[in-house]
Amino acid sequence: MTTVDGVSPPARLADPDEGISIEELGLAARNHALPLEALRYDVTPVGLHYLLIHYDIPDLDTGTHLLTVDGRVEHPLTLDLAALRARPRVTRRVTLECAGNGRALLTPRPISQPWLSGAVGTAEWTGTPLAPLLREAGLAPDAVDVVFTGADHGVERGVEQDYQRGLPVAEALREEVLLAYEMNGAPLLPQHGAPLRLVVPGWYGMAHVKWLTRITVLDREFDGYQNAVAYRLRSSADDPGVPVTRIEPRALVQPPGFPDFMSRTRVVRTGPCLVEGRAWSGHAPVTAVEVTTDGGVSWEAATLDPAGPEADGRWAWRRWRYEWPATPGRYVLGVRATDASGRTQPVEQPWNRGGFANNLVQRVEVVVTGSA
Amino acid sequence: MTTVDGVSPPARLADPDEGISIEELGLAARNHALPLEALRYDVTPVGLHYLLIHYDIPDLDTGTHLLTVDGRVEHPLTLDLAALRARPRVTRRVTLECAGNGRALLTPRPISQPWLSGAVGTAEWTGTPLAPLLREAGLAPDAVDVVFTGADHGVERGVEQDYQRGLPVAEALREEVLLAYEMNGAPLLPQHGAPLRLVVPGWYGMAHVKWLTRITVLDREFDGYQNAVAYRLRSSADDPGVPVTRIEPRALVQPPGFPDFMSRTRVVRTGPCLVEGRAWSGHAPVTAVEVTTDGGVSWEAATLDPAGPEADGRWAWRRWRYEWPATPGRYVLGVRATDASGRTQPVEQPWNRGGFANNLVQRVEVVVTGSA
Repeated sequence: MTTVDGVSPPARLADPDEGISIEELGLAARNHALPLEALRYDVTPVGLHYLLIHYDIPDLDTGTHLLTVDGRVEHPLTLDLAALRARPRVTRRVTLECAGNGRALLTPRPISQPWLSGAVGTAEWTGTPLAPLLREAGLAPDAVDVVFTGADHGVERGVEQDYQRGLPVAEALREEVLLAYEMNGAPLLPQHGAPLRLVVPGWYGMAHVKWLTRITVLDREFDGYQNAVAYRLRSSADDPGVPVTRIEPRALVQPPGFPDFMSRTRVVRTGPCLVEGRAWSGHAPVTAVEVTTDGGVSWEAATLDPAGPEADGRWAWRRWRYEWPATPGRYVLGVRATDASGRTQPVEQPWNRGGFANNLVQRVEVVVTGSA
Repeated sequence: MTTVDGVSPPARLADPDEGISIEELGLAARNHALPLEALRYDVTPVGLHYLLIHYDIPDLDTGTHLLTVDGRVEHPLTLDLAALRARPRVTRRVTLECAGNGRALLTPRPISQPWLSGAVGTAEWTGTPLAPLLREAGLAPDAVDVVFTGADHGVERGVEQDYQRGLPVAEALREEVLLAYEMNGAPLLPQHGAPLRLVVPGWYGMAHVKWLTRITVLDREFDGYQNAVAYRLRSSADDPGVPVTRIEPRALVQPPGFPDFMSRTRVVRTGPCLVEGRAWSGHAPVTAVEVTTDGGVSWEAATLDPAGPEADGRWAWRRWRYEWPATPGRYVLGVRATDASGRTQPVEQPWNRGGFANNLVQRVEVVVTGSA
């Protein structure tokens, strides 16, 4: 393990009433959120999908890029992009969400990428399924984890590293998992992992390794930084915690009416108001969506749009709608999703030291004015 | 003028030591900055170009969208996209920068969109020149300002408005000004003004009105919110100020080496290090670029790449390079551009109440380690 001194600030929680720091702002500026009005699109337009890039976007050449498959396999493989494109081609619509979504709204606030609620997006990912490639390489019977290495290189908490994540073999062999080289019908953009990335439907974004260079099969659990240190649900700094895995259910309101520039408070005219948005879960299909207009005191059922066909439906968000008879006053809108596993969104914050997998109900401030 | 009460916070400056507020963070999340490693691209890939959207991205239909030309013209016009596309077609490479770039680094900090240094991008804009269209409409001899109205609707400091900007007639008639319907060879994306926007090479971003619906010629100076109130250089709240217009010279370093995740401090190995980046000015061609590795105490000349052909060169950033013999230690890198008008970047902050047109030299923290 290579360490670098003097560049990584220590992990910490914000003091009570401590504003967002310039370092957090730096991350917020480069890691883009979905502007919430973009919840209107079934498939997020290029450039509006959220981005979380640990280090720099690497500068890779599609023409010479190679993917190596090695470790506990019978036949190590090396493939270029032409070889990957010659393999079976699949397109899947998948909603990705960052594991840290909502972190900046937690109390106390873990100091890291300061997401509000927009670390989400839905894309059409095209690539070749991973499982047949692993079977061709011949997984050893003692295979435990599959490690995916990206070309992005940097330092985190003093540890110099290429971004790497391990995935249990059973997850890596799921038929939905893709080695993707296109997004929304076009070659991957640099910031989304060009020329090759992993897509693991249902899992938080940290699993979908971008700028993929190597797939290594291990006979043990991967103990690299991003699995053993970073993406864990810990109650305190000395709790070893449990791994962050699948996306907890969440729904978001596409904010109705029009906004104030600075506060983003919404202005809605008196009268019937269609409140709509999206809901998703990586654990199981969304079965119910409820809307609140009083900050979580009372809830009304929303109508869920039918799920799409299997390839589009299970792993992508679903639209929901609610007819709100808006009368003058101030309101706090929110929405909560429940999935078939029984998971639902909390009205009080779930908290862990890293600020992960937090699906606290959103708060959208609305002023309803007399009809114009 | 329609006003809306109770949604707009008052204009203010941050208190000393006041952290970034949750409202500023909300703007930073939705208004994307250029990640600085993307300075490597001559043309910014889609999705990495900066975005500043005052209200919501509107939901417009290219098939039915209409542009109206009216006011002090002999022949008012209404054109659809097909009619605009049938007119002469031009592509120009243009660097756009937000007038508020750098605002969050000012002391005291004006509370608004909290840009660090990444509110910039360069695109290939394709569209039809504006001037012939205005001539066909027949400008009245008393024409003073041309007002461009966008479809984005919201509230700012209590004033409900469609985004509107006035441009002096002489600027509107410059041959470089385009009504653009494509960006980087593809139809405009929603967040960049689809289906039609204005491009005014050399001016800060506020002039390049997106989601364009109407062009109105006035026989007086436009006194709408974005000209008379928002985009002005004021020394204090009661100073009427002067309008924000063209882009001040600026250069940025493409940060060398690799970053720490949180602090973004750069790690560079001992040895020769190519420091490079981009420089631009809306006033006149960039004539000199100087690099500092000691936070502005001493300066060395960098090498400017030749400008491209006229269509690509004058209004787009230019690459510069500097060979730095990096030896172990901590450094603060920066760069300053000078243009043919004699304007240069300051080492001490220029300050105005809105935080506009501030081209303070950048600071890039670098740690040089022993060779690896």
